[in-house]
Amino acid sequence: METHHVVDAPYRQQHQVEDALERFLELAKTQAVSFGGAGYLRLWETIERSMAGGKRFRPRMVMTAYEALGGTDIVAAAHVAAAYELLHTALIVHDDVIDRDFVRRGSPNVSGSYRDIAQTAGIPLPLAEHRGMSVAVIAGDLALSASYRLIDRAGSADAVRTRLREILDDAISASAAGELADVDFTVGGVVPTVDDIIRMERLKTAYYSFEAPLQSGGVLAGAPEATIDALGAFGQQIGIAYQIIDDVLGVFGDSKTTGKTTIGDLREGKLTVMVAFAAEQPEWHAVEHLFGDPDLDEEGAAVLREVLTTTGARQHATLLAGDYANRAWEQLASPSIPAQLRDELRPIVATVLERSR
Amino acid sequence: METHHVVDAPYRQQHQVEDALERFLELAKTQAVSFGGAGYLRLWETIERSMAGGKRFRPRMVMTAYEALGGTDIVAAAHVAAAYELLHTALIVHDDVIDRDFVRRGSPNVSGSYRDIAQTAGIPLPLAEHRGMSVAVIAGDLALSASYRLIDRAGSADAVRTRLREILDDAISASAAGELADVDFTVGGVVPTVDDIIRMERLKTAYYSFEAPLQSGGVLAGAPEATIDALGAFGQQIGIAYQIIDDVLGVFGDSKTTGKTTIGDLREGKLTVMVAFAAEQPEWHAVEHLFGDPDLDEEGAAVLREVLTTTGARQHATLLAGDYANRAWEQLASPSIPAQLRDELRPIVATVLERSR
Repeated sequence: METHHVVDAPYRQQHQVEDALERFLELAKTQAVSFGGAGYLRLWETIERSMAGGKRFRPRMVMTAYEALGGTDIVAAAHVAAAYELLHTALIVHDDVIDRDFVRRGSPNVSGSYRDIAQTAGIPLPLAEHRGMSVAVIAGDLALSASYRLIDRAGSADAVRTRLREILDDAISASAAGELADVDFTVGGVVPTVDDIIRMERLKTAYYSFEAPLQSGGVLAGAPEATIDALGAFGQQIGIAYQIIDDVLGVFGDSKTTGKTTIGDLREGKLTVMVAFAAEQPEWHAVEHLFGDPDLDEEGAAVLREVLTTTGARQHATLLAGDYANRAWEQLASPSIPAQLRDELRPIVATVLERSR
Repeated sequence: METHHVVDAPYRQQHQVEDALERFLELAKTQAVSFGGAGYLRLWETIERSMAGGKRFRPRMVMTAYEALGGTDIVAAAHVAAAYELLHTALIVHDDVIDRDFVRRGSPNVSGSYRDIAQTAGIPLPLAEHRGMSVAVIAGDLALSASYRLIDRAGSADAVRTRLREILDDAISASAAGELADVDFTVGGVVPTVDDIIRMERLKTAYYSFEAPLQSGGVLAGAPEATIDALGAFGQQIGIAYQIIDDVLGVFGDSKTTGKTTIGDLREGKLTVMVAFAAEQPEWHAVEHLFGDPDLDEEGAAVLREVLTTTGARQHATLLAGDYANRAWEQLASPSIPAQLRDELRPIVATVLERSR
């Protein structure tokens, strides 16, 4: 029986999260009709479609910490988990506005869907794009508000809920700080240092994707403060490792596995650990003009990949990610991490490291 | 003593609201430094500057309902009031992104401040504008999250707080529906009807500016459901009246009193009750091309004002606003509105009507 339970846990968790998301979206759509009719319903449907097929990565962090720490109210945990999926949606929808992206995972995102509707209606492209981005600003606001709503629906005791909201507040504040730093880098015109990049990525992504959901799972399970702190420290290290590897895969990955092209990041001039490292080597100057060129072709991308390899930038990033993953692994030895939690978190470290191979 | 108390109440209220806002912003700035350093601090300072000198209209609605219904925890009410000022900030910052406005009340808004910084750094205008808008997307998210935080800080009982959050959720949902309808109108290419405009303005502005803050003040004061309902009905009518008059003043007002030019709305093609009415008259077709022309000059604006007057559009809007204000006045006769509340709300109706003269 015990084995059966363990084997089925991830599936059961996932089912509960999907259920919480589905029920929330049904309610949102019903309210949308009464507030704003068919047009408002369509916006919620577009948000829902943009969420379909996601890896539910942040929800899994919440559920894993919660169950491994002995939490038994799976429905409550699924609501907190769903809150982080909605926060993720809000942040990527607004991030796409900032990056002027109209596509995500090969399909039109919220901005793209509304840009296409406007173009079909005969609106010229620049205006249609602005229209798509305008609707995406609204959609992101709705998803952000939804994350607060879902925390409230968890139905936990007042003190726990206050704590969960504080973690959510901090996650939003951190990702705003990271997004701002990212925008500032682009304006500065100077490639930031490796440390600057790591600080930015921790704030922009790692905090709300790892630290906050893991800690929320722990808080909801009633874990002691020392465990919450240890979950935060673990989340920070593994989150940074994940992000560094994600950036490497964005340039060198197998697009079949990642679902992303390996030219997009180079074309938009995404600042990563690799780029920050390479920019300090003399070889970079000869290829710098290709980086961030919107017309970059496969040949140019190959030149950039070559320099990122020969300067040792790719290797440096991979080793650095390994360092952070090791620190995360060591963190799990903390006496504040109970054995069952350790057993559940170790595979996460392994999965992150495997991605880099 | 009693007279003294009544005379001083608005001043005292205002002081408490400013105090709650100031303390919240101080905390946000301290957190900002620890999360994101000087750049993040500057963003909060820019948000704070954009809030300075506001009329604190929504906070006044909260405080008026709360005190007139016998509420005595002024500090708690001031936090709820401050939440609605932050919500207002979030919505106008994002609305300015959608409208591509870089100025508000004669000064650079959040987008404008960051556009200017980027331009000074040598970034070309289109990119500098996009950079300003990107930071404004982040700023609006922070202000939206802040409105939830401030409701939590009101420190009220759990059931009351849940109710306050539901009203805040609805306010955000309504304004999103209204903003979406507004964006849709511009894409549709057809001038909407007077009823469409009223429905849109109620959702986009009246709900979060009148209904929600009045009802929140009532809920916090522990008023019975019938009173909360009556406050909502009153808020809806007076909110629509206010908005219609605001649009009339946007074209015919005294810019010295309103602080706005009377050409801006005509230049950007703002759809209002007046325009919807005028568009149904044959005279409109001859001047239609001037409406929404970004290069509209004072001469062209005078032509449009003339047609809005001779078609009776201006008069129709003023009368319609009067109708809504009258309905609001009648609503005050409801037995669910206690005498003291009635006495406090009547001057609001009077103020709204006076603006139209």
